[in-house]
Amino acid sequence: MPERTAASRLRLCGLCFLLQILNILLFAVFARYSPESSPGHCPPQRDCSQRNQDSGLQRPRFRDVHTQVLLSFGLLLAFLGRYGPGSAAVSILIVAFAIQWALLVQGFFTFFLNGKIYMGAQSMVSADFCTAAVLISTGAVLGRVNPIQMLLLALLEVTVCTLNEYILLSLMGVSDSGRSLTVHTFGAYFGLMVSRVLYQPHKDERKREERQDMGHQTDVFAVLGTIYLWIFWPSFTSSTTAHENAENWAVLNTYFSLVASTVATFVLSPVLYEESTPRMVQIQDATLAGVAVMGMAGEMLVTPFGALIAGFLAGLISPLGFRFFSPFLRSRLKIQDTCGVHNIHGLPGILGALLGTLLTLLATADTFGDRLELVFPLMAQGSRAVTGQAFIQLSALPLTLLLAALGGFVTGAILKTKMLRSPPDAQYLENTVLWEVKLGNC
Amino acid sequence: MPERTAASRLRLCGLCFLLQILNILLFAVFARYSPESSPGHCPPQRDCSQRNQDSGLQRPRFRDVHTQVLLSFGLLLAFLGRYGPGSAAVSILIVAFAIQWALLVQGFFTFFLNGKIYMGAQSMVSADFCTAAVLISTGAVLGRVNPIQMLLLALLEVTVCTLNEYILLSLMGVSDSGRSLTVHTFGAYFGLMVSRVLYQPHKDERKREERQDMGHQTDVFAVLGTIYLWIFWPSFTSSTTAHENAENWAVLNTYFSLVASTVATFVLSPVLYEESTPRMVQIQDATLAGVAVMGMAGEMLVTPFGALIAGFLAGLISPLGFRFFSPFLRSRLKIQDTCGVHNIHGLPGILGALLGTLLTLLATADTFGDRLELVFPLMAQGSRAVTGQAFIQLSALPLTLLLAALGGFVTGAILKTKMLRSPPDAQYLENTVLWEVKLGNC
Amino acid sequence: MPERTAASRLRLCGLCFLLQILNILLFAVFARYSPESSPGHCPPQRDCSQRNQDSGLQRPRFRDVHTQVLLSFGLLLAFLGRYGPGSAAVSILIVAFAIQWALLVQGFFTFFLNGKIYMGAQSMVSADFCTAAVLISTGAVLGRVNPIQMLLLALLEVTVCTLNEYILLSLMGVSDSGRSLTVHTFGAYFGLMVSRVLYQPHKDERKREERQDMGHQTDVFAVLGTIYLWIFWPSFTSSTTAHENAENWAVLNTYFSLVASTVATFVLSPVLYEESTPRMVQIQDATLAGVAVMGMAGEMLVTPFGALIAGFLAGLISPLGFRFFSPFLRSRLKIQDTCGVHNIHGLPGILGALLGTLLTLLATADTFGDRLELVFPLMAQGSRAVTGQAFIQLSALPLTLLLAALGGFVTGAILKTKMLRSPPDAQYLENTVLWEVKLGNC
Repeated sequence: MPERTAASRLRLCGLCFLLQILNILLFAVFARYSPESSPGHCPPQRDCSQRNQDSGLQRPRFRDVHTQVLLSFGLLLAFLGRYGPGSAAVSILIVAFAIQWALLVQGFFTFFLNGKIYMGAQSMVSADFCTAAVLISTGAVLGRVNPIQMLLLALLEVTVCTLNEYILLSLMGVSDSGRSLTVHTFGAYFGLMVSRVLYQPHKDERKREERQDMGHQTDVFAVLGTIYLWIFWPSFTSSTTAHENAENWAVLNTYFSLVASTVATFVLSPVLYEESTPRMVQIQDATLAGVAVMGMAGEMLVTPFGALIAGFLAGLISPLGFRFFSPFLRSRLKIQDTCGVHNIHGLPGILGALLGTLLTLLATADTFGDRLELVFPLMAQGSRAVTGQAFIQLSALPLTLLLAALGGFVTGAILKTKMLRSPPDAQYLENTVLWEVKLGNC
Repeated sequence: MPERTAASRLRLCGLCFLLQILNILLFAVFARYSPESSPGHCPPQRDCSQRNQDSGLQRPRFRDVHTQVLLSFGLLLAFLGRYGPGSAAVSILIVAFAIQWALLVQGFFTFFLNGKIYMGAQSMVSADFCTAAVLISTGAVLGRVNPIQMLLLALLEVTVCTLNEYILLSLMGVSDSGRSLTVHTFGAYFGLMVSRVLYQPHKDERKREERQDMGHQTDVFAVLGTIYLWIFWPSFTSSTTAHENAENWAVLNTYFSLVASTVATFVLSPVLYEESTPRMVQIQDATLAGVAVMGMAGEMLVTPFGALIAGFLAGLISPLGFRFFSPFLRSRLKIQDTCGVHNIHGLPGILGALLGTLLTLLATADTFGDRLELVFPLMAQGSRAVTGQAFIQLSALPLTLLLAALGGFVTGAILKTKMLRSPPDAQYLENTVLWEVKLGNC
Repeated sequence: MPERTAASRLRLCGLCFLLQILNILLFAVFARYSPESSPGHCPPQRDCSQRNQDSGLQRPRFRDVHTQVLLSFGLLLAFLGRYGPGSAAVSILIVAFAIQWALLVQGFFTFFLNGKIYMGAQSMVSADFCTAAVLISTGAVLGRVNPIQMLLLALLEVTVCTLNEYILLSLMGVSDSGRSLTVHTFGAYFGLMVSRVLYQPHKDERKREERQDMGHQTDVFAVLGTIYLWIFWPSFTSSTTAHENAENWAVLNTYFSLVASTVATFVLSPVLYEESTPRMVQIQDATLAGVAVMGMAGEMLVTPFGALIAGFLAGLISPLGFRFFSPFLRSRLKIQDTCGVHNIHGLPGILGALLGTLLTLLATADTFGDRLELVFPLMAQGSRAVTGQAFIQLSALPLTLLLAALGGFVTGAILKTKMLRSPPDAQYLENTVLWEVKLGNC
């Protein structure tokens, strides 16, 4: 047995080494600093003037990047509330690898010119977003995959996620600056599909027993994660939208949504569970849901009370999903969702996309003013009608679901190969103290 | 018993639902986005040119708002050090409700025009300040009120607090940009008055026994809260003062005050208690006191050594208050102060107001330069003499105390009604595990 | 025994009081606010035009200072992962005192004009850097010195550290904006020298036994510290470099270095230790090492893959040092390094200085562009050749080591005097619960 374990340890170590060397070589061949002096660097194959104004992300103000790099790690902190500190080490490994890989893959799609990738502030922001999608997906399979499988999941998901982002934002001109679709929805359904393919009947009960051991530490992380989301997310949203005017709405909408979704938890949780006040993890989930629902719509004219209503609904959907939808997924569709990403990211993301479509239909030059050019540049230029843009926004949802499902299926099939599964999970788990902790915490 | 508990759970849930629906309706009728394109939006009934320059708060730079929304949650994190993580869930509910309510009430007072409230960056900052006052007040009564009573306390306090703020800042032209009076002093004495009205003789001993159970988790929060205050508070102070030049002083003064009050804890705590080094919670209290004392005076010419002295005094007052004043309050005045807000916010706030008055008397155009117009616009315009302004600053103190006492008395009387008290506290406590934890942690 | 303890308690209290009064008096005599209206305030005895452009630190944008004051406390948070929360109270005392003292000492060296020290945003940043060096040094001796000795260590180290900084940055014109040498290397070797002088044979075993008691709390702090470093350090680096263009490189380089050093931990730790995944503290150490290695070179043309390689090496050096170098230091050189600062700050700092020298040799006006004037102003002006600057950068390393060793030796000798050692450590430790905790946690 010890030999097996030693082999497993060395395999992870060797894989990390190989991947890092690969990254260094690829960086050496392709990566260059973005020449900031010439701001108009634009790959020839696409219409930059459009993209530049499209999502607001295309002209990041560098001094705000310090807010932007918060993203992936903020998410990490937030996730620890549910995933537990035991999984922190592996999560950080995933993040460290996924960021490098996303810089490369996204570079080939978006920042490629004359055989070189030009990396700058925006590359880092995009890579952070992509890493967030990976973190969401790992939440669905946590406790049932080993670190090596997780690394491969990150490798594959970053690629598919970037493809989806490229199609939606660049080719179709979808407005999704807060990433309801490309991060929250994509990450959730990709992870669920991987979980479906990896389904093993007996794992589930084991997990639930160990769940009781969950200490107070998880709660500390949940408190910190909630506070972190409240503090930094509205400002994060604001820093990805380029124009001062557009900022205003995104911050306010996200803020109102957060507030309402928090109150919603207190409304539902005493009804669904026998507790007078919700646990911190539930409040944090509601906060994440309130954020996800404002991803696409945040920049649009939600109006203050609209944001309150949307946040309130998102805050209701999340606990309802945990109570009624997760058992259905598990028993009927054989999809185990370890950390409930479907309820926290999947459903609110879809709700956000539908809300965004509705608001696109209602968008007029009168109500949006200068903002129209930022949020819907094609509409402002007159090259696309309101209904056309709304149709595009709506059709992005099934497309994202399709890509996530396909990508997740292939990834799951690869992770399931015997080579990766051995040493057998059960034994691996028994030999690895840390891994046990991880199981118990989520 | 279980039936009673179930009823109590559903009452909280129902109240949350009703309040949230009420907020959504009021937002739908009154709230609109602030039209940022026209910066000079000013309600007709007041002199904007004056207010705009008065506190510096009137023209927030939107890109700094991300620092500003930190406030209420930073405070929350800081409070957890003393209140304990068990109370985190209810505190977050209070914050989520109080922010919405404060946006409405303050909107009616300050941002009301043509029947609509125009919400923008500044509304959020003001709402955060008001929420901080509510959090301070709950510290005085924590463990002796149920969540429903807390929600009503927030509902009433926000209203009175906004009234006090309106009278002081808008009508009287008091300079209190760091809110020594309107947040720290008001919140502390409001909470103490509520505590006085709710006085129940036997609660106290129970609380003190359970206090021993306090685990290490509280200390984790105290460490984090202290670090948070050190990191973000000076910059917060700077972002509420509009002018680049005035920023400088406010940041430096707050920083010096923090440093000195921290050292003061190490001077007094070994004398008062039999410990070689103070507990983290005591250090955090000193930090809060050092911040509260710089609220009004921060923008003025404190001079570096003046800030050191003020912070040192505030750091001494806080532990002395815990040792000698709190027992006096409890035994003679029958005021239980669960978390010692009188020592942490009340006394330093008063000290800050007196210091601010003194510095106002010493203010001259020579020493302040351009700053005079920012801190004391009426004096700069020549429409108010130095002594006049100083008198106004001083008279704001008894006025704040009066309003806080009156508001607290009425609020306490309402919370005491039988309808709200049932189910009986003792029984409620026994049935609610979470609540026990809360009692034990503070 | 109790009497002795009481005496020891009162001695700390009295020393704090005396030092604080001393600081207040010195501030009263010398400290004034920096007159921001005239930005060109420059002591007559030095060439400001050069220094202003040299390190980028000389023209801090005030609005970014809120990021900059994060430094010392961010470090504190990061250090708690290794030092343990038990030492938090004393660490905060050290920080609070060291900041005031550094403001004074650095003021005399750098901001002194007409008998007054002019304090502003930059003074605070410099003081924070200096405090970081002190925190690093205390890591080497933690658990073997009492709080009084720590205060004196801070008093002496701030002075020597400022002298070293003045010689390197002002007199020699070394480019070290991220402080590989003046903070990381200096702090580590100063602390190691103090540790050598204070060497007591029997302490070590005691410490190692108690090490087993280390609870999960340390891990919470390690998780938070790691996330904090990831989030804030790249932006911190960016805010100390003045020019928008130069920022870009520093942020990206630090970010790449962090990512690679994190992966490196996962490569080495399974080989060195019998664990499948590294402990959080090890990941945090790698993160700190990745930051330290980019201190000097961050602003230069590292190129993306160069930053990956440097970070990867730093991430390998740190665990190798713990495994092979620390035992050697302990047994042969009789240097106990409680928290392994030699591996986390010392070796990566030296590596960073060597890397910086190499990159200086390769620097040309072509590759650097406008940047050259910011990073190497003397080279841009033509008054210094490339080889000359590279020689200066290289010679700064032995000079720093020399000053650190000398300063540490004198400080250790002073701390060793009988007056300071009594009451005898062992007894002191037995009587002080908190102190035991501290021993156990590191």
